[in-house]
Amino acid sequence: MNLMDIYQELKDDITAIEQELYRSIDSNYALISETSSHLLKAGGKRIRPVFVLLGGKSGAYDIERLKHVAVALELIHMATLVHDDVIDNAETRRGKPTVKAKWDNRVAMYTGDFILAQALARVTHLANPRVHQILSKAMVDMCVGEIEQIQALYQWNQSLKTYFMRIKRKTALLIAVSCQLGGLVCDAPERVVHALYRYGYYVGMAFQITDDILDFTGSEQQLGKPAGSDLRQGNITLPVLASFKDPAIREKIISEFKSGTPDMPKIINLIKQSGGIAVAKTIAQRYLEKARQSLEDLQAVYSKKTLIKITDFIEQRTY
Amino acid sequence: MNLMDIYQELKDDITAIEQELYRSIDSNYALISETSSHLLKAGGKRIRPVFVLLGGKSGAYDIERLKHVAVALELIHMATLVHDDVIDNAETRRGKPTVKAKWDNRVAMYTGDFILAQALARVTHLANPRVHQILSKAMVDMCVGEIEQIQALYQWNQSLKTYFMRIKRKTALLIAVSCQLGGLVCDAPERVVHALYRYGYYVGMAFQITDDILDFTGSEQQLGKPAGSDLRQGNITLPVLASFKDPAIREKIISEFKSGTPDMPKIINLIKQSGGIAVAKTIAQRYLEKARQSLEDLQAVYSKKTLIKITDFIEQRTY
Repeated sequence: MNLMDIYQELKDDITAIEQELYRSIDSNYALISETSSHLLKAGGKRIRPVFVLLGGKSGAYDIERLKHVAVALELIHMATLVHDDVIDNAETRRGKPTVKAKWDNRVAMYTGDFILAQALARVTHLANPRVHQILSKAMVDMCVGEIEQIQALYQWNQSLKTYFMRIKRKTALLIAVSCQLGGLVCDAPERVVHALYRYGYYVGMAFQITDDILDFTGSEQQLGKPAGSDLRQGNITLPVLASFKDPAIREKIISEFKSGTPDMPKIINLIKQSGGIAVAKTIAQRYLEKARQSLEDLQAVYSKKTLIKITDFIEQRTY
Repeated sequence: MNLMDIYQELKDDITAIEQELYRSIDSNYALISETSSHLLKAGGKRIRPVFVLLGGKSGAYDIERLKHVAVALELIHMATLVHDDVIDNAETRRGKPTVKAKWDNRVAMYTGDFILAQALARVTHLANPRVHQILSKAMVDMCVGEIEQIQALYQWNQSLKTYFMRIKRKTALLIAVSCQLGGLVCDAPERVVHALYRYGYYVGMAFQITDDILDFTGSEQQLGKPAGSDLRQGNITLPVLASFKDPAIREKIISEFKSGTPDMPKIINLIKQSGGIAVAKTIAQRYLEKARQSLEDLQAVYSKKTLIKITDFIEQRTY
């Protein structure tokens, strides 16, 4: 199954949004255009625009309004990627050199700021204060999430709750808001808008957990970085925390890190043996089930079928 | 003359804004609150809030509306300071250790993002799309200015025009927008709002040029950093560019830098001898004169007198 097959019907609108994205980051300043379009060309799944459009299908679908929201949300997401690169000291993302690696941290930071500012400029085309409120609140929470993530690095004693809060702020929130705003700007009923938000939240949680699983199960070719990279950088995710249920495995993993030169293939095997991956998969499935349940209130329209197909896709995702 | 004496009448409202600033950066997350309030306590002249309020005096002064704008603009300014610290590798600002020095670059970057997001959340209290448009456009331009500043570092051949464009984006724009939005949210006539913008732009240019002069003429105690720090970090400002009119001085300064260990006291003396400071002062005065002229259209109300007093203050500013 390919994600694009699922939303074939949206293809033209997605293409239009892609073009708008290019236009948004186009500037008279060579360095900015180059830096941003470098990022844009690295691609991505454009998941947020897709959710915005599907949200819109639950109301009076209006591509003109949806376009502004979709572009703004994808730009916000891109800005966080640029700033993450500064943070992660990541040398590659999706197999391409990161903005940071290619230029330097300082330009990367301001390019992120620039993309963010463009996102906000874009959304002013919609004279809807609620859109601004929801977006700015989401941005505040996302920043909190980023700082929490830094604080949680190498914190072996963190709770599952800390992890769930973190991925909510890091990933689920923006997907929830994508679904919500799609419905909102197309005047979907309040009840439907709320259901869309909840769907997006649960899907976002499952999506991030799946990402965190793939960091251990994917190949370097699939991931565009070596397996176990997140953990290597101190990001302790659900498969790791689940594996810690076995104190012996916990001990082994932590001492690998304390040695200063953790043996990542060995650690990955430990996590797989512990059943940590299986536990994470079960939890992701539970979130997807909740996502499906959130849609019960929606009419059996196109978007409902597609939204459910997306949950199936995430369940079967292997890269 | 003290700036506070000038706007004595605004004292209560400035205090109220100061409290709102504290509230805005207060969060449930210790690290963020600590990082931000550290910055807030370092103080600052709160110039942007003052201009917002004075702009408001040209219309139907409404502190409730003005407060949101003033807080948002000061938060945006604070966010740029935090990000500048990441950029500048500055160890101190106004004599206090910078956020970057005290924690690290990564937290500083996200704290800047957080403050920016709070600024935007704050301005959503005003259901006025034009305010959003003006603010987001200013933010885009400011980011462009920051990237331009990086590109211009150590570019000895840059033109005066490049410098003026840079300080417009870096400083003048946000002051112009402060004056403009103050008038706008208090329903001042369009013509007055435009005059306020122009006033703010000219004052902002003069203000930054004065700052750039003081970098050479101020003492370390006054500046909170050694004299010549901007130039030491490659930031080529008006006094330097003006001194380059004399090819011999230009040659000497550049070769000091090419040596790898520039003798800053020597360079500062060269700039002073060249008359570069005097030229910069004359240009600053010309901007202030234009600022005063911009006000001609305004009625002889309280704010006009105060706005003119501020231009006098900048003219005489020694630290």
